[in-house]
Amino acid sequence: MSVVYRDIPKEGLSRNEFEEELHKIGEERYHDKHPFHHMLHGGKCNKGQVQAWVLNRYCYQSAIPRKDANILAKTTDRELRREWRHRIEDHDGSETAPGGIERWMVLAEGVGLDRDYVMSTRGALPATRFACEAYVNFTRNMPLLDAIASSLTELFAPKIHKERIAGLLGNYDFANEQTLSYFKKRLDQAPRDVKFGLEYVLREADNGEKQRRVMDAVFFKTDMLWAQLDALYFAYVEPGFVPPGAFVPDDRK
Amino acid sequence: MSVVYRDIPKEGLSRNEFEEELHKIGEERYHDKHPFHHMLHGGKCNKGQVQAWVLNRYCYQSAIPRKDANILAKTTDRELRREWRHRIEDHDGSETAPGGIERWMVLAEGVGLDRDYVMSTRGALPATRFACEAYVNFTRNMPLLDAIASSLTELFAPKIHKERIAGLLGNYDFANEQTLSYFKKRLDQAPRDVKFGLEYVLREADNGEKQRRVMDAVFFKTDMLWAQLDALYFAYVEPGFVPPGAFVPDDRK
Repeated sequence: MSVVYRDIPKEGLSRNEFEEELHKIGEERYHDKHPFHHMLHGGKCNKGQVQAWVLNRYCYQSAIPRKDANILAKTTDRELRREWRHRIEDHDGSETAPGGIERWMVLAEGVGLDRDYVMSTRGALPATRFACEAYVNFTRNMPLLDAIASSLTELFAPKIHKERIAGLLGNYDFANEQTLSYFKKRLDQAPRDVKFGLEYVLREADNGEKQRRVMDAVFFKTDMLWAQLDALYFAYVEPGFVPPGAFVPDDRK
Repeated sequence: MSVVYRDIPKEGLSRNEFEEELHKIGEERYHDKHPFHHMLHGGKCNKGQVQAWVLNRYCYQSAIPRKDANILAKTTDRELRREWRHRIEDHDGSETAPGGIERWMVLAEGVGLDRDYVMSTRGALPATRFACEAYVNFTRNMPLLDAIASSLTELFAPKIHKERIAGLLGNYDFANEQTLSYFKKRLDQAPRDVKFGLEYVLREADNGEKQRRVMDAVFFKTDMLWAQLDALYFAYVEPGFVPPGAFVPDDRK
């Protein structure tokens, strides 16, 4: 039985213990442990595999502002909405700033993909779409605490972004300041976001039942990130079965 | 470009052409074409792989009455609701008849799984859960025509059920009249169900736009069935990476 499945007492863990427990989920289940990430960061992906990753991960990027809008829609607390709202702008951009999705499109074009094809999500793996929509639905259907808690994988993200920037820059021709600007920017944005989300959850989850729900939300989120990499690995690494209708790299046509 | 992507004229295809087009989706994309099915029916699955299939497919079985309830909830047409309602009873059972989910549990116990473990879905692959919930959400969020159309994979099911009964009986010790009663029963039920659904769709999809929506609903459904077998193959055949927390067969512990 995994360490992260420890029983939580009815009155809840102390703040420090609970925070530690959340970190343990990341240590065990965050997708930086997945073989596809090791390949990607270690320079072992070929062009088609990198394209497949960028193309599929677009589904996740484009789900983010929708899940954040669900969270806004859930609370009557104007202060909370004001604080949370900038996440939507961070991704969708404004008249003066391009936003995270546009930065993702720069990466997509940098790896040789057609912008419209990527944005249509026609070539994405169905499993990717199901996982990303599960996230949007989770934030729509669950209580505010659970919905906010599902963002807490940001706790584990700065490390993966740093590794990714270094790994991609060191290993791939397409990688440069411009194509990797999405990850660079997230290094500034994520710590602010997670500080707020973590503080909220540590304050609001004030008994064992709520702490259990928070942990389950983080499990759910690590599952949906992991499932995306499983699907990529299955279709584009081993055994390499591309489902009907999904993106086929040039070298496999 | 696949044959099933033919353009549909604005006024729609003729009834016969449209029906033929629906059958073509099955010929190209129904999950009887998936390598996992060839393994299963050909006697190539070991015990753990059969267990994983039964365990994961339970998520799909248990989603069916929920998707049918969404369809009932969508129409003010009492005749349609009365016709559709028996599907829920077929799966959930009644005081006098066990129902399809109970028949599935007989299969689960027949392959050596614990009933409560299966029903908890704790060991199911996250990708399976995401795909099955995508189906429930599809029927919740889409118009009645699309929701009904997503059932039309039943057109292709009798063939797979017959193959499955023969393939399982011929190849596995656990297979007998009792453990395979789910599939036997579906051979009686599915033709009635699909006759009604097909008739409804052929009648209601009376222009090109609606026919396109019907076809997209069937594409969606074949995708979600296919994605479940992709996930099984990935975790339990090749490369055999079981995601954190999912069922681990005895021979791999």
